[in-house]
Amino acid sequence: MRYRKIPDETVRRLPIYLRGLLFCSQQGQQNISSNTFADLLGTNAWQIRKDFSYFGGFGTPGVGYDIKKLTREINKILRLDVGHRAALVGVGNLGSAVLAYPGFKTYSFEIAAAFDTDPRKIGRKVNNVIIEDIANIGTLKKRNIDLGIIAVPRKAAQEIANALVQAGMKGILNFSSCYIVVPRKVKVITIDIAMDLARLPYYMPIR
Amino acid sequence: MRYRKIPDETVRRLPIYLRGLLFCSQQGQQNISSNTFADLLGTNAWQIRKDFSYFGGFGTPGVGYDIKKLTREINKILRLDVGHRAALVGVGNLGSAVLAYPGFKTYSFEIAAAFDTDPRKIGRKVNNVIIEDIANIGTLKKRNIDLGIIAVPRKAAQEIANALVQAGMKGILNFSSCYIVVPRKVKVITIDIAMDLARLPYYMPIR
Repeated sequence: MRYRKIPDETVRRLPIYLRGLLFCSQQGQQNISSNTFADLLGTNAWQIRKDFSYFGGFGTPGVGYDIKKLTREINKILRLDVGHRAALVGVGNLGSAVLAYPGFKTYSFEIAAAFDTDPRKIGRKVNNVIIEDIANIGTLKKRNIDLGIIAVPRKAAQEIANALVQAGMKGILNFSSCYIVVPRKVKVITIDIAMDLARLPYYMPIR
Repeated sequence: MRYRKIPDETVRRLPIYLRGLLFCSQQGQQNISSNTFADLLGTNAWQIRKDFSYFGGFGTPGVGYDIKKLTREINKILRLDVGHRAALVGVGNLGSAVLAYPGFKTYSFEIAAAFDTDPRKIGRKVNNVIIEDIANIGTLKKRNIDLGIIAVPRKAAQEIANALVQAGMKGILNFSSCYIVVPRKVKVITIDIAMDLARLPYYMPIR
């Protein structure tokens, strides 16, 4: 079953909720009120209640939300309940940071392959992943990997995107900070760290 | 003048619009319709029109939006028209990627200082920024820097956040993927690259 009617902005917040729920669960909590949860996440309670209302109510008045049930439901909606394997392309500074990143496990992701063009890097093992020659990118088809992560310089991004689509990737996380064009059936999320920085001054007290 | 009534979700999209407008401007365009702009950004035209309506209409029917005017207005709203200087703490893989990142200029940001604890890194110059001893973080007060970027391991993040607040930072971009606690007057935006990856499967075709 798909939950097609959930707005994109709610989908964007679901991973934040998931991380918060995991944190609460690790603290030994079983239930949480929308108010307490809002305080933890730095958001507001009405938004949490509204977001949760899209996929059914799990809250009991005076008790709060059942953390375990809610976690299971959000994982199902985001289709993280099945686990996903991703391939990283580009093992420079950013790519290395991605490979070493401990946070993927929270969402049942595994970086299962890494590619580069630099002969000095190919064959090296980083975080249990052996860096492969980019020429082998076509082998992804047979390896049960459906997500690509682009961490190459801007000018190589489109070419790599084409190769990832060719190799059967259904989703691409693009760190190259430039637009890439892919067929409609492939979903791209572009991350531009400067964009998040650009939101900060709006919220800062005026000097 | 502040534009206090703009919803957070619109604020989140303003940097995306800004980057798109810059791209169009570089292509020599002077006006753009909401439909064309929506196609470029992979969003929908009604959302663009709605977002732009919060800060006044710049569109002319049949002509579109005036790119230059709109750019100036969004820069003003986000308070990017004054320029901002940021200090980076932690020059590991991720920090190095941040230092080398070309995208900050789009939003008139400059990384003006970098700190680390590793004696082998201190004194080295990366992208025209000399890496300083973290012990000097207090000097930020006098250096017209108001943004901090945390790229240290999780366990050091809170301590660094405290030091940045102490040094007068008004906004913090946190890459450590853990919650940090700061006084209310300081705005924190936490980036978790795994969270963006976590949204992808929702949009991917079912296997």
